[in-house]
Amino acid sequence: MIVVMKADATPAQIEHVAAHIQSLGMKPQVIQGTHQTVIAAIGEERVGLAETLEPGEGVEKVLPIMAPYKRASSELKRERTVVKARGLEVGGHKIAVIAGPCSVEDEEQIVSIARKLKALGATGLRGGAFKPRTSPYSFQGHKEQGLKMLAAARAETGLAIVTEVMAPEHVPMVAEYADVLQIGARNMQNYQLLQAVGDSGKPALLKRGMSATIDEFLLAAEYILDRGNPNVMLCERGIRTYEDHTRFTLPLATVPYLHEKSHLPVVVDPSHGTGKSRLVPPMARASIAAGADGLIVEVHEDPEQAASDGAQTITPDAFRQMMEQCRRVAEAVDRSL
Amino acid sequence: MIVVMKADATPAQIEHVAAHIQSLGMKPQVIQGTHQTVIAAIGEERVGLAETLEPGEGVEKVLPIMAPYKRASSELKRERTVVKARGLEVGGHKIAVIAGPCSVEDEEQIVSIARKLKALGATGLRGGAFKPRTSPYSFQGHKEQGLKMLAAARAETGLAIVTEVMAPEHVPMVAEYADVLQIGARNMQNYQLLQAVGDSGKPALLKRGMSATIDEFLLAAEYILDRGNPNVMLCERGIRTYEDHTRFTLPLATVPYLHEKSHLPVVVDPSHGTGKSRLVPPMARASIAAGADGLIVEVHEDPEQAASDGAQTITPDAFRQMMEQCRRVAEAVDRSL
Amino acid sequence: MIVVMKADATPAQIEHVAAHIQSLGMKPQVIQGTHQTVIAAIGEERVGLAETLEPGEGVEKVLPIMAPYKRASSELKRERTVVKARGLEVGGHKIAVIAGPCSVEDEEQIVSIARKLKALGATGLRGGAFKPRTSPYSFQGHKEQGLKMLAAARAETGLAIVTEVMAPEHVPMVAEYADVLQIGARNMQNYQLLQAVGDSGKPALLKRGMSATIDEFLLAAEYILDRGNPNVMLCERGIRTYEDHTRFTLPLATVPYLHEKSHLPVVVDPSHGTGKSRLVPPMARASIAAGADGLIVEVHEDPEQAASDGAQTITPDAFRQMMEQCRRVAEAVDRSL
Amino acid sequence: MIVVMKADATPAQIEHVAAHIQSLGMKPQVIQGTHQTVIAAIGEERVGLAETLEPGEGVEKVLPIMAPYKRASSELKRERTVVKARGLEVGGHKIAVIAGPCSVEDEEQIVSIARKLKALGATGLRGGAFKPRTSPYSFQGHKEQGLKMLAAARAETGLAIVTEVMAPEHVPMVAEYADVLQIGARNMQNYQLLQAVGDSGKPALLKRGMSATIDEFLLAAEYILDRGNPNVMLCERGIRTYEDHTRFTLPLATVPYLHEKSHLPVVVDPSHGTGKSRLVPPMARASIAAGADGLIVEVHEDPEQAASDGAQTITPDAFRQMMEQCRRVAEAVDRSL
Repeated sequence: MIVVMKADATPAQIEHVAAHIQSLGMKPQVIQGTHQTVIAAIGEERVGLAETLEPGEGVEKVLPIMAPYKRASSELKRERTVVKARGLEVGGHKIAVIAGPCSVEDEEQIVSIARKLKALGATGLRGGAFKPRTSPYSFQGHKEQGLKMLAAARAETGLAIVTEVMAPEHVPMVAEYADVLQIGARNMQNYQLLQAVGDSGKPALLKRGMSATIDEFLLAAEYILDRGNPNVMLCERGIRTYEDHTRFTLPLATVPYLHEKSHLPVVVDPSHGTGKSRLVPPMARASIAAGADGLIVEVHEDPEQAASDGAQTITPDAFRQMMEQCRRVAEAVDRSL
Repeated sequence: MIVVMKADATPAQIEHVAAHIQSLGMKPQVIQGTHQTVIAAIGEERVGLAETLEPGEGVEKVLPIMAPYKRASSELKRERTVVKARGLEVGGHKIAVIAGPCSVEDEEQIVSIARKLKALGATGLRGGAFKPRTSPYSFQGHKEQGLKMLAAARAETGLAIVTEVMAPEHVPMVAEYADVLQIGARNMQNYQLLQAVGDSGKPALLKRGMSATIDEFLLAAEYILDRGNPNVMLCERGIRTYEDHTRFTLPLATVPYLHEKSHLPVVVDPSHGTGKSRLVPPMARASIAAGADGLIVEVHEDPEQAASDGAQTITPDAFRQMMEQCRRVAEAVDRSL
Repeated sequence: MIVVMKADATPAQIEHVAAHIQSLGMKPQVIQGTHQTVIAAIGEERVGLAETLEPGEGVEKVLPIMAPYKRASSELKRERTVVKARGLEVGGHKIAVIAGPCSVEDEEQIVSIARKLKALGATGLRGGAFKPRTSPYSFQGHKEQGLKMLAAARAETGLAIVTEVMAPEHVPMVAEYADVLQIGARNMQNYQLLQAVGDSGKPALLKRGMSATIDEFLLAAEYILDRGNPNVMLCERGIRTYEDHTRFTLPLATVPYLHEKSHLPVVVDPSHGTGKSRLVPPMARASIAAGADGLIVEVHEDPEQAASDGAQTITPDAFRQMMEQCRRVAEAVDRSL
Repeated sequence: MIVVMKADATPAQIEHVAAHIQSLGMKPQVIQGTHQTVIAAIGEERVGLAETLEPGEGVEKVLPIMAPYKRASSELKRERTVVKARGLEVGGHKIAVIAGPCSVEDEEQIVSIARKLKALGATGLRGGAFKPRTSPYSFQGHKEQGLKMLAAARAETGLAIVTEVMAPEHVPMVAEYADVLQIGARNMQNYQLLQAVGDSGKPALLKRGMSATIDEFLLAAEYILDRGNPNVMLCERGIRTYEDHTRFTLPLATVPYLHEKSHLPVVVDPSHGTGKSRLVPPMARASIAAGADGLIVEVHEDPEQAASDGAQTITPDAFRQMMEQCRRVAEAVDRSL
C-alpha cells in the first residue's frame, strides 16, 4: 500500500501515519518526494486496510498495490482451470456452447429444443426455473417443476443442465437437478448465496454484476473458491453504461484481461450483453475471436411467444448459422467448437 | 405501448403485429406516419409485454408508456407516506437523521456513540451487525451479538435501530432486534430478501442499487409493498459512474424526481454517496435543500480505528457541526430537523 | 510516480525500469515488498511520463502521485479567485446568478427578459448567439446579430453578458460584445479554442465536458490560465451516466471537491444538469447548500415557444420563486444572493 | 413523435398540446388509452421539436420516433459506402489496416516504420502531427513539420496518410498533405471543424466521442455529409464507463449496429479502446469477427521511448503476429485482409 501525504503534511502527521502502519502489522518506508512525501506500507496488504489509513490527518490518498483476490489469481495457480460437468467442459481447447430458452416453459418445449441444440453442437442446456424479475408482476418461473423439466431434457439428450439459483435456501434443491449452478448478475454480491454455492461443491457459472469492477467480480468468485469449490466459470454478460441502443454494453476486453489475471475460464453471454437478437451472432463470433472459453445463448422456437427475454432470443435456425460461423472463427484462433 | 415499425415494414408485418397485440389482450390502433407506421397497444400494459413484441418481423422498437410500478406510484396513492419506527419518523415536516458507525464493534462503543448522537439530534441509530463485504477476507460483522449490542444502545437512548439484513433466513432474527430493516445496495434486486422483508411487516430502508434506474428502484420497493408492507423508505446512496474522485456519484435530482413519481419518503446517504468524510457535511446540506426527508450518516469516535468504512466516516464533533448547518438549511426550506 | 512491478519481475527488469526512470530525469527508489517490488520515481512528475514506463517488461502498473495541473491548483495559489465582469462577481461572499434564454431570439425578447431578470436579482445575462447543435438541421443561432441583441440588453440593464464562443476564429468578435466567454461542454477539450480564450484575456466560464474527470476539467482550465488569463470560472453542468430520467446526472459533490483542489470559483447549471424544468429549482437550492459560487439558469417567457431547450427552461415566475428560495438557503450557509 | 400525457391531464391540456402540434406543421392524432392519453404527431419530425412539446402542461414525456440523421442513414442510401484514399479502401470486401505511431517524431522514424508496416500489410499510415493533449504541458506535435515527414513516408511507401486535424483553420494545411483527415474523439462535436472537413471534400475518419450516443455519432457524420462530402468513415474507439482496468470500454456491438443503421464503413481502434498493448491483438481479432471494415492501430519501434501513448502501442513484431491472426479471422468471416 502506498500512502500519499498532502504537500503540506507536517512531520508529526507523517510520523503518525507511519506509526499507524506499524500498528497494523506492516513496515512503513518513508519516501521524500520533491513535492510530497509518500509512505510505502510493506507487508501483507489485507482488504480494508486502506480505509483505516485514509482518514489520517495530512493523508491525501491511499493506493493499494496488491490484487485483493488470491485463490482466483493466476499468480497463485498458473495452470488454467477446466470446469467439467457431464459433457460440458469449459476452459480447454474446445469452446463450449450452452444454449436454451430464457425460461423453462413446459416439458415438451424444453425437451424439443434441447434435442435441436444438441444436434447443432451445444453441450450445455440453459433454462430458468427460478427467474429473478425486475417486477413482482412478471412470470417468476416454474420453480421445482421447471427443474424436473430440465432433468427430463437431460435424460433425453445428455446435455448438462445450467440453471440459476437465487437464494441460499434453494441451493440444495437446485443442486439436486442441475449440473451447473448459475449465479445471476443481480446476485453477484449476494454473499450468502455465493457461500452456499461454494459449499455445494457443484460447478458454478458466476455472472458479472452489471456494474461490477473486475476486482469485485474476482472477489465474488473468491467467495465460492474460498469454500473449497474450485469449479467456477466467470461469465461476462454486459455492463450498464450510458449506451441505450443496446440493453447493456458488452466489453469483450474483459476476456483477455481475465485470462491474464485469473486461471478461471471465461464464458460470454451475447444475449444479455446486447439485448437484441440481430446482434447476438456477430458478438458471439467476436467473443470467440477475443478468446472466450464458452458462450451462453438464448434460443427459443418462437421468440415472439417466449415467456421472457424474447427480444434477445434467437431461433434454432439462427443458432445453426451462428454455430457454423463460430466454428470457423474458433479454428482461426486455433480452437475448436 | 407503442410499437414502431420499420420504414420498410410490409402490410402483412403490420397486420401480424396488430394481431399479436390483440392476442395479448390489448387493442391495436394503427397510425400511419409520414415515414413509418406506429401501432399503439391500448389496454393494461403488463411488464414484459414489450419483450414479446420486439422480435416481430418489421418491428424497429417498442416504447412502453405506463410506469411499471403501481403501489409505489403517486398516481395510486396521493398522500405522502410517513414511516414511523419508535421516535424515528420519516416523511413528515421534520427531517430525520439516522447516524452511527458502519459496523457495531462492541457494546461500550455503540452505547457511548448512541448517547452522543441522541444528544445531537439523531432519532435513528445505524450500525451493521451483518456486513456485506466485497472480500471474503474482510470483517463480516458480529451478527446476533451485534444485534444485541444495538438493542442495548436502544435501551439506553430510545433511538430506533436501523440495521442491515442480508439473507431471507435472517429476517426473523434481525426483525426481533431492529426497528428498521435495511436492504443494502448490493441486495436491491435480491427478490427473496425483498419478499421476506415485506412479509415481516417491519419498516424497511431500501437502498438504491449502485446501477439501478429509478424504475428498477421503485419496482424493488414494489416487491415489499406487494406483500402488504407499506412502510418503505427509499434511500439514494450514490451510483456508479466513471467519476473516480468520489467513491460513487451522488445524484440529488433523485430526491425531487422520486417525490414526483412516488409517495414514499426519500433518505440520502452522503457517506456512501461520496466516500470521503470531508464531502459528507456539504452533501448533507445539499440533500436537505433538494428536499430529502432524512439522512443516514456514518459517525465514529475514531474513524482511523473503525472496523470498516473509515474514510467516509465523520467524528461526533464534525457531526455536531453538520447538524447545526443542516438545521439552518432545513429551516430555509420550511422544514425542521 | 510509483511503478508497481509484477510479482514475477526479474532483477534485470527492475534494474531496467530504474534506469529508465533515471533517464527521464528522476531518481528511482526501489522498495522491496512482501510480494512485489515497487519503484518510486522521485522528482518533477511530468504529464505523460507514466505512458513511457507502462510498457516496460515486468511492469504491472504505474500510479501517478502528483496532480497534473498547477496554476489551477489550490496548492499554488491559496487565496480564492474572484472573477469580475461588470456587476457580475463570482467567487466572493455573494452568490451570482446568470440567467436568460437558451438562444437569443430577437431583440425585444432579450431586452424584455433581461429587465425582468435584473429586477429579480440576476447579475449576468446568458443567451446563445452561436449555438452548438447536435444536428446540422437545428437552429444554429443568430450569430453576430444575436451578439448585438445581447449588447442592446446590456445597454438597457447593465447585466454582464455571458455567451458561448465555439471556434477560435470567432473569439475576437464574441469578445467585442460579451463580458464573459462561455466554453461549452462539447468544447471543453477544444484546445485551440481554450488557448484563444486565454489569449483574449476575457473572463471565461468553462463548462465541464459531459464525461470529463476532475483532472481533465482542471487541465482544460490550465490551458486558459497558462495563457496568462486568470479569470476562469468552472461550471458543473452534469455528466453522462446510465441514468435516463434526467438529461444528465448532476453531481454536486463536484462543488466542495473543486473548492478543495482549486482556487477557481464554481458555478452550477441546474438546467442542463437535469434537463427538466421542474427539477431546476430544487437543484439550484441544493447547489447553493453545497457551496456553489454561482448559478446559470435558463429562463424564457414561454418555454413552449423557445427556439431551443424548452424542456429545461423555467418561466420568469418560476425564476422569481427560485430566487426567493435560494436567497434563504444562501443565508443558511452564511452567503448572500 | 408521441406525446404521452399525464394520467390526470385535463381535456383542455390535451387540446392545447394537439393545437401546438398542429402549429408546428404536424397532424395530431389523439389515442385514448386505458390510463393515459397519448398524442401521435404525424409529419416530418424535425430535431428539437420534442423540446417545444415537453414543457406543456399535462405532458409527461415526448418520445421521438424517427432517426434524427438522414444522409448517414441506410434507409436513404442502401448500398454501402466504400471510402477510397490512394491504396486505402475501406468498406469493401477487404479489411483495411491503418497503423503507425501515435505521434510523428522524426522523418527517419516515420519512414522506417512505414516501410515495415507496408511490408506487413497495412494500407494506411497513421501518425499525429497535431496532437490534442489533455495537459498544456504535454508534447503537442510537430505540426507542419510533422505533416512533411508523413508526406516523405508516403513518397517512400505509397501508404495513404491518415492524420488528425484539430481546428477549422488548419484544415487547408492538413488537407494539403494528408489523404484522410482524422477528427478526434474530443472534437466529435466541434461543429465548425466538421463543417470545414466537409467542405474540404477529403475523406474523413470520424472518431466516436468518448460519451457519444450512436445518434450523436451519426449526426456528427451528418454535419460532414451535409456539406457534400460523402467520404466518411466511422471509428469506434471506446467509450467512458466506470471500468478502470482498461483506459476505455470498447463496445464492439457498435459495429453490427452501425452497419444496420448506416451505409458508412466502420473502423475500430483497439489501441485507444483498451489502452493496454497486450489487449490490442485480441480486440483487433474480435473487431474483425464483429464485422469491422478496418482497424487503426498504434505501432512504434520502441513503445517505451514513444513520445505519447506508449502503454497502448505495440511493436512491429507484435503487429506482424496480429496481422497473421487477423488474416485468419477475416477469412473465417468471408473477408480478406
